[in-house]
Amino acid sequence: MAVWKWREKQQDGQPETHLGFSPPTPTLSDMKWWVKWWRWDPNVGKFTVGDTVGVGCIVGCCGNCRPCKSDVEQYCNKKIWFVVKIPEGMSPEQAAPLLCAGVTVYSPLNHFGLKQSGLRGGILGLGGVGHMGVKIAKSMGHHVTVISSSDKKRVEALDHLGADDYLVSSDATRMQELADSLDYIIDTVPVFHPLEPYLSLLKLDGKLILMGVINTPLQFLSPVVMLGRKTITGSFIGSMKETEDVLEFCKEKDLTSMIEVVNMDYINTAFERLEKNDVRYRFVVDVAGSKLSP
Amino acid sequence: MAVWKWREKQQDGQPETHLGFSPPTPTLSDMKWWVKWWRWDPNVGKFTVGDTVGVGCIVGCCGNCRPCKSDVEQYCNKKIWFVVKIPEGMSPEQAAPLLCAGVTVYSPLNHFGLKQSGLRGGILGLGGVGHMGVKIAKSMGHHVTVISSSDKKRVEALDHLGADDYLVSSDATRMQELADSLDYIIDTVPVFHPLEPYLSLLKLDGKLILMGVINTPLQFLSPVVMLGRKTITGSFIGSMKETEDVLEFCKEKDLTSMIEVVNMDYINTAFERLEKNDVRYRFVVDVAGSKLSP
Repeated sequence: MAVWKWREKQQDGQPETHLGFSPPTPTLSDMKWWVKWWRWDPNVGKFTVGDTVGVGCIVGCCGNCRPCKSDVEQYCNKKIWFVVKIPEGMSPEQAAPLLCAGVTVYSPLNHFGLKQSGLRGGILGLGGVGHMGVKIAKSMGHHVTVISSSDKKRVEALDHLGADDYLVSSDATRMQELADSLDYIIDTVPVFHPLEPYLSLLKLDGKLILMGVINTPLQFLSPVVMLGRKTITGSFIGSMKETEDVLEFCKEKDLTSMIEVVNMDYINTAFERLEKNDVRYRFVVDVAGSKLSP
Repeated sequence: MAVWKWREKQQDGQPETHLGFSPPTPTLSDMKWWVKWWRWDPNVGKFTVGDTVGVGCIVGCCGNCRPCKSDVEQYCNKKIWFVVKIPEGMSPEQAAPLLCAGVTVYSPLNHFGLKQSGLRGGILGLGGVGHMGVKIAKSMGHHVTVISSSDKKRVEALDHLGADDYLVSSDATRMQELADSLDYIIDTVPVFHPLEPYLSLLKLDGKLILMGVINTPLQFLSPVVMLGRKTITGSFIGSMKETEDVLEFCKEKDLTSMIEVVNMDYINTAFERLEKNDVRYRFVVDVAGSKLSP
């Protein structure tokens, strides 16, 4: 995720937070065009020239539908790009993962009323989203258990990321010990997995929040959900408001993500390493430092 | 479900709403013993001698766990019987289905913030719980769509129960027309069924509330839940507070359930008819009129 110098456009006197065009994916030529457009357009919205701003995930916003009018424009069907101001003093490369993985975790915690301290949360799967999950939940004052299929990431979770507990899902004794103990689980696993073992870890009214786009049907038994009024839900990135909030939250808590900054010419290698899951936990492409021709 | 003349017991000066013993199922000898106990015990709690009260479903209450302390004692693991006062002017046979099917529908609407008028709800499956669902949701001022696998219950749903719409789940055109239109679906189907078609009917943040105990795993695709932050959840009867509330609500709205009152000697025939789904919609056993020996 690249971070850009950007600003907001105004149309018809109405401030808007989107740029009014919609490329399907960010290509190098798009990026150059945006920079030209930025230089050309004289209007200024809530951003000022020289502000450091970030472009988040593709989010939808027609401005007219119910999601748009309820500050949850990420669920609108019309795809448009947004920009968000990076807080003073936060480095763009640190902001980058927050615009995607960070807000993806922050949004459901915010929406489902899971921000107060003292909660007990589980993070299932320790990748890019999972590592942000541990850091953000810990900063909210939660007791955080990382749940994994093997013991491989124990040191990483407990010593480097600051999790409170580490649970191997095949350890039946400990799974039983932690039954009915968690207020929520953020489930970042992107492949098929059984849900019952994790639903069993939830307390009454506990929430299993899915983040992984999985095209094999997931399964569960209805009594496991009913007898405890548990919730299976999912969430998709976050709203502009939540993106601004997570940046401010991380600034305030001095929360940093674990990233590897690379130049544009490293992209192919980065993709190869991504395929081997060889990154802790996000590549950030330094476009400004990549000396692209204008 | 029989309705009894009953009253509350006090222990150690603390009013309690349970009776302090726990038969696994209500047998005739249990019932007789309770009547004896009622005659013998001199203490009076919030009920007075001569009050008409109801015994609801078996609900758990140890009085000490988190569910018990949060007015959701139906999720406690210790099974004890409760009694609840029947509002003045409500007939016991009308109260009976409310103590089970009624509160089973009322509880999730109450808990998940779905009581305000103007909502659009779906009732999937028109049986005992479903028919109470239509009546209660209509009384809350909701637009109610009955969803069924065939056209058989259309007249019943629209003309007798007052539903606003009737949707046959195999009608692809109408299913598409009603996509993203419902705030919730109360799913009363007690056998395996695919969840995707019904999840697709839900709006952003819509809730699919399962009521059927199904031992075959239910299935769904994670993107269907994520892209709309939809919720799959379930609920189990209701709390004592909600049981009292639903009785008052139905009294106030003059809401009656469709029942068939039978005597105790009809029980075997009633069970045979239940197996054939031949009841609209609840049998109520008139114990007092059955002339049992004391």
